[in-house]
Amino acid sequence: MQQNRNFSGVIAPILTPFTRDGSPDPDRYVDHARWLLANGCSALAPFGTTSEATSLGLEERMELLEQLIDAGIEPSLLLVGTGMCSVTDAAVLTRHAVDSGCGGVLMLPPFYYKNPSDDGVFAYYARVIDEVADEHLRIYLYHYPQLSAVPLSLALIGRLISSYPTTVIGLKDSSGDEKNLHSALSAYPQLEVFPGTEKLMLTGLRAGAAGVISASANLACAQLHGLFRSWQAPDASQLQQAIGEMRTTLDGYPAIPALKALLAQYRNDPEWATVRPPLVELDSADAVGLAAVLVKKHGFSLQIK
Amino acid sequence: MQQNRNFSGVIAPILTPFTRDGSPDPDRYVDHARWLLANGCSALAPFGTTSEATSLGLEERMELLEQLIDAGIEPSLLLVGTGMCSVTDAAVLTRHAVDSGCGGVLMLPPFYYKNPSDDGVFAYYARVIDEVADEHLRIYLYHYPQLSAVPLSLALIGRLISSYPTTVIGLKDSSGDEKNLHSALSAYPQLEVFPGTEKLMLTGLRAGAAGVISASANLACAQLHGLFRSWQAPDASQLQQAIGEMRTTLDGYPAIPALKALLAQYRNDPEWATVRPPLVELDSADAVGLAAVLVKKHGFSLQIK
Repeated sequence: MQQNRNFSGVIAPILTPFTRDGSPDPDRYVDHARWLLANGCSALAPFGTTSEATSLGLEERMELLEQLIDAGIEPSLLLVGTGMCSVTDAAVLTRHAVDSGCGGVLMLPPFYYKNPSDDGVFAYYARVIDEVADEHLRIYLYHYPQLSAVPLSLALIGRLISSYPTTVIGLKDSSGDEKNLHSALSAYPQLEVFPGTEKLMLTGLRAGAAGVISASANLACAQLHGLFRSWQAPDASQLQQAIGEMRTTLDGYPAIPALKALLAQYRNDPEWATVRPPLVELDSADAVGLAAVLVKKHGFSLQIK
Repeated sequence: MQQNRNFSGVIAPILTPFTRDGSPDPDRYVDHARWLLANGCSALAPFGTTSEATSLGLEERMELLEQLIDAGIEPSLLLVGTGMCSVTDAAVLTRHAVDSGCGGVLMLPPFYYKNPSDDGVFAYYARVIDEVADEHLRIYLYHYPQLSAVPLSLALIGRLISSYPTTVIGLKDSSGDEKNLHSALSAYPQLEVFPGTEKLMLTGLRAGAAGVISASANLACAQLHGLFRSWQAPDASQLQQAIGEMRTTLDGYPAIPALKALLAQYRNDPEWATVRPPLVELDSADAVGLAAVLVKKHGFSLQIK
């Protein structure tokens, strides 16, 4: 295992709470951030897919980030989503994260135009790096072809690392493709690689992954941390299997509404279930049913506060 | 053919010029807008796909729109792209367009989350309509599944029209799917429908389409207007065929870089070729070759200014 990693362990792509009128809710946000960091998360990834990042405005994202930091969350523990369709917006968010002292940024490629050339996607990252022009900038590439529909090829990743070796230092691979994860790990051993699903956590860690960044870490942070802490122990495979089965149960539901609905139950705070369009709140009967299955089948018992 | 349409005829999704440093260029923008309106376009659609809209920031879009209007372009002739991943951003842009007196807005669905439910996409449009809360708002739905990867189903379109009959009044169908175009036209005859490609212009007009909104109108506005003016004439099929063949030639190139490179040649103004990442400027030899084919094969001779 590499020493001196910038990020490692279990990172939660922290959910963004909204009030019933649809506004971001900084109080619930800070509470949730504190709870995650106290219960197994080594860091947080605000404004990932699970955070409904693309459903937020630029100002909303910058304000929420400032509210986390103002509340005392250590900025070096924040891996901030800053990838946007617009390279100028991406540069604004990235500059803001760096100026705020954040530990790194997690960057989607621009995702509107499909089948862009590697030259074009390279130019996007290069322009952000050139505009931010700060030696503290640390970029984690975000490969999520199912949602971005713009995959990051291994060749492009290699080209970015070669051109910006001290800036482009990580990858979140949310493809769910075990082969792609291992290809990236073996091609670029210097990269901090995080699978985007806990289903590939153990296989990833054994091949040199730095940790995991997964939606379910918003609730199952302690369980995921348990596996991270003891992945070299004899019972690691059983832990991985139990975690994988829990995720399979979650996969029967739309991830973000389900996680918010569960949090609403565990915190006895219905407003937590609120999502922004195009997502739709989970039906409350479904949410109760899901919580019961998690307890019964997966021994998942969670009381928050 | 319906009377009293809000928009009809040839509408150019106007290209957005950038200076070499990547900033939007209002002078070239206004020049191009004037040229289009003087040469066959009945209206302009700023911030469509061809405009590299998603590569612009929110402020950039609002400033460019104001610069067009301040330069004397009649706002009722502007059908402004305002669909965004973020419903709050979409509401900001839509409110700005309405306050500026624009004739309508062309709205993509939120396009990051894939396979959203119809309920979720409906909620997005509904929230924008509710937040803008202005009887002058006129929405044209923008169906472009190849790029948004979020199709608008006919059922959803019908539901939006029923709920907001005086607000949701149009559709740009950029699917290129002739069957879908005819299904929309026959299901919703009250809708102002624009195919997004000139290849379907004549078949669309014969079935009640209001006109066409196509990338190539940025250059071939006169030719497209010729067909619009005389689609009921005996030689309409020949005009359609010639236009379709020209488009097939263009289809061999990436559309936006090619159109900008052609404009750069015709205007003898190389800076016009500039694009933002992830698009890549057309190789200049390719651009010269394409211009020659357009002249030789399609009798396309264009000198601007």
